[in-house]
Amino acid sequence: MRITAYRKAHFNAAHRLYRPDWSDEQNTAVFGKCSNPHFHGHNYDLEVGVTGEVDPETGYLIDLKILKDIIKEHVEDAMDHRNLNIEVTEFKTLIPTAEHIAFVIYNRIKKHLDPKFDLEVKLFETERNFVVYKG
Amino acid sequence: MRITAYRKAHFNAAHRLYRPDWSDEQNTAVFGKCSNPHFHGHNYDLEVGVTGEVDPETGYLIDLKILKDIIKEHVEDAMDHRNLNIEVTEFKTLIPTAEHIAFVIYNRIKKHLDPKFDLEVKLFETERNFVVYKG
Amino acid sequence: MRITAYRKAHFNAAHRLYRPDWSDEQNTAVFGKCSNPHFHGHNYDLEVGVTGEVDPETGYLIDLKILKDIIKEHVEDAMDHRNLNIEVTEFKTLIPTAEHIAFVIYNRIKKHLDPKFDLEVKLFETERNFVVYKG
Amino acid sequence: MRITAYRKAHFNAAHRLYRPDWSDEQNTAVFGKCSNPHFHGHNYDLEVGVTGEVDPETGYLIDLKILKDIIKEHVEDAMDHRNLNIEVTEFKTLIPTAEHIAFVIYNRIKKHLDPKFDLEVKLFETERNFVVYKG
Amino acid sequence: MRITAYRKAHFNAAHRLYRPDWSDEQNTAVFGKCSNPHFHGHNYDLEVGVTGEVDPETGYLIDLKILKDIIKEHVEDAMDHRNLNIEVTEFKTLIPTAEHIAFVIYNRIKKHLDPKFDLEVKLFETERNFVVYKG
Amino acid sequence: MRITAYRKAHFNAAHRLYRPDWSDEQNTAVFGKCSNPHFHGHNYDLEVGVTGEVDPETGYLIDLKILKDIIKEHVEDAMDHRNLNIEVTEFKTLIPTAEHIAFVIYNRIKKHLDPKFDLEVKLFETERNFVVYKG
Repeated sequence: MRITAYRKAHFNAAHRLYRPDWSDEQNTAVFGKCSNPHFHGHNYDLEVGVTGEVDPETGYLIDLKILKDIIKEHVEDAMDHRNLNIEVTEFKTLIPTAEHIAFVIYNRIKKHLDPKFDLEVKLFETERNFVVYKG
Repeated sequence: MRITAYRKAHFNAAHRLYRPDWSDEQNTAVFGKCSNPHFHGHNYDLEVGVTGEVDPETGYLIDLKILKDIIKEHVEDAMDHRNLNIEVTEFKTLIPTAEHIAFVIYNRIKKHLDPKFDLEVKLFETERNFVVYKG
Repeated sequence: MRITAYRKAHFNAAHRLYRPDWSDEQNTAVFGKCSNPHFHGHNYDLEVGVTGEVDPETGYLIDLKILKDIIKEHVEDAMDHRNLNIEVTEFKTLIPTAEHIAFVIYNRIKKHLDPKFDLEVKLFETERNFVVYKG
Repeated sequence: MRITAYRKAHFNAAHRLYRPDWSDEQNTAVFGKCSNPHFHGHNYDLEVGVTGEVDPETGYLIDLKILKDIIKEHVEDAMDHRNLNIEVTEFKTLIPTAEHIAFVIYNRIKKHLDPKFDLEVKLFETERNFVVYKG
Repeated sequence: MRITAYRKAHFNAAHRLYRPDWSDEQNTAVFGKCSNPHFHGHNYDLEVGVTGEVDPETGYLIDLKILKDIIKEHVEDAMDHRNLNIEVTEFKTLIPTAEHIAFVIYNRIKKHLDPKFDLEVKLFETERNFVVYKG
Repeated sequence: MRITAYRKAHFNAAHRLYRPDWSDEQNTAVFGKCSNPHFHGHNYDLEVGVTGEVDPETGYLIDLKILKDIIKEHVEDAMDHRNLNIEVTEFKTLIPTAEHIAFVIYNRIKKHLDPKFDLEVKLFETERNFVVYKG
């Protein structure tokens, strides 16, 4: 019996979108208000989905507490109430777009999850803009 | 023209997670607060998706009233305001985890749905924990 | 500057509505499916509002962490994953309707809150049924 | 790096479901209250998903402003505060069921989107009834 | 013990805003797209609040089934899947703005509710526009 | 006929909570993670309520477009995608807590609203923390 189980989480962070190798004009042309040098921020809502076979002994795909703890340690503790550009290693070299943040979260969780599971990450930057990354 | 149409429903029920062949210690170690012998409960939110070809005569994939009535008769009437462990047959032998409840709901609906349709069941146990089962 | 600050919380619990001094027929006539002797349950959503003067030194009405901790200790730890009728003292003598649960939560929080604050409690039993109690 | 990015939108419209080549009785038998000759209406909520490769230079799959503008011009401006049956060309010959509206929206957006992208359209007719169309 | 209990409901309807004694230009100037002569529509979400003393015998302010039935008979059956301007008596002489619809719903419910209760009506025309009327 | 009409809006911003006349230790003791010197951010959701007499000629309390434009010009354009501490005048001297942001928004809107109306501002900093300010 193959199923997907999901756990929601969230974190609040500041970010800006820009490339240091571009002029201010170029950054504003591409990223608009999102390149504000003083930063802006979001309440990021996160849905993490794990797919695999249900354990016939417990009826669980995965103890969601395990997933919750991985998200807490490797995503929330690292990103909540942070400035993504300045305080999260991966964004020293990666622009913190929703696409890239989902990619970073995927990789952080994947590393600590039993490899028998497939993983998907849905990240809401606002209620109206969101992305889904499945590796 | 292939499409998926969804119908939401919900029911409120009590349950507990435990195996009678395990000691209380083992049940608590695996299921935590969810194995409380006095039961606890949830507002279960359900999204049932049906996939197939749109009927060119009506523009409907399926009359959602048909789907609504199947859900009403075979899920809501059976599980709403019930104790899942005690009052729903399948959970005499199956631990009522979200995964298993989705599996039972899938099977109950599948049996009464035109076999030309594919079926998927999304079940929210809480706003933060949910599963998707596609058979 | 007078303001109201709110904190949301939730808990999952089993309950049933019935009076032991009534016959089963009477209980069913008044409480319907809610008097099921095997219990049913809900995800209760809670909004706790505190009203008073903003502290000019911090810009806070109240540090919401204080409110969060009171709710955690006196509501969530006491009621989450519990059977309200059996495991929560007040409901030995009080029918656990949404009205009475809001009343009990109000009194539990009020006792631990600085008396200079006014308090209100909004309790959702389902997405469609909820109550507001202001003392 | 393959990802899906979503943009939400909405519009309010009147419609009715009926076939002019059917009798009133037949229309009522199939479409029920939805065939009311005086029309009824909905707040349609729309989620448009675009799938493809992230641009390594910007970290964007697509500038969501481009997607937002396509939706604005070809869906919202055409359907918002409109009578779908009378004022939207495609529904002169197509019954405006949720399935068909999703199909029309898909085709309108697809025509203006870079063909390298896959497209999906999720349309909520009510909070409880919705469809997903992926072409 | 004074409390407010709420019940949610909804209905889908078509309407338009206009005064027959005004020119088309005047109607468009005041009501914009909402005066479209072909109508448009909404999913109206309704929250009905009833305030009074809790019955010490049942722990209920009011059996919400009574309130649900009043809403069903006098609001939903009269307005769901209807054209408000053409099919609801009060709007022959009253422009069906959200304000007026709330007023009409208030009066329809008030007439069938025990006069010992206070009543309030919250009506969402869209997710972003709503009104509260308390008599 | 006295009524309250509401309009929702939102903006995304960065902020931090701290007093420049306090040591870092004191700021951290009072404001915790919220005093992060690199800032963090939120999707602020806003509900603006206006109370008064319905205009018998139009059935409107207020043309919500007027309210929407005031919010757009004096709140969204000033605060969206901004750093509140650095880019919004009032927060040069006021700590941008939810309480103070609601106070500033109230005053900005009040100044441009017909004085015959009462005003209230509900501001969500996160889904779980919010404030209501009524002047």
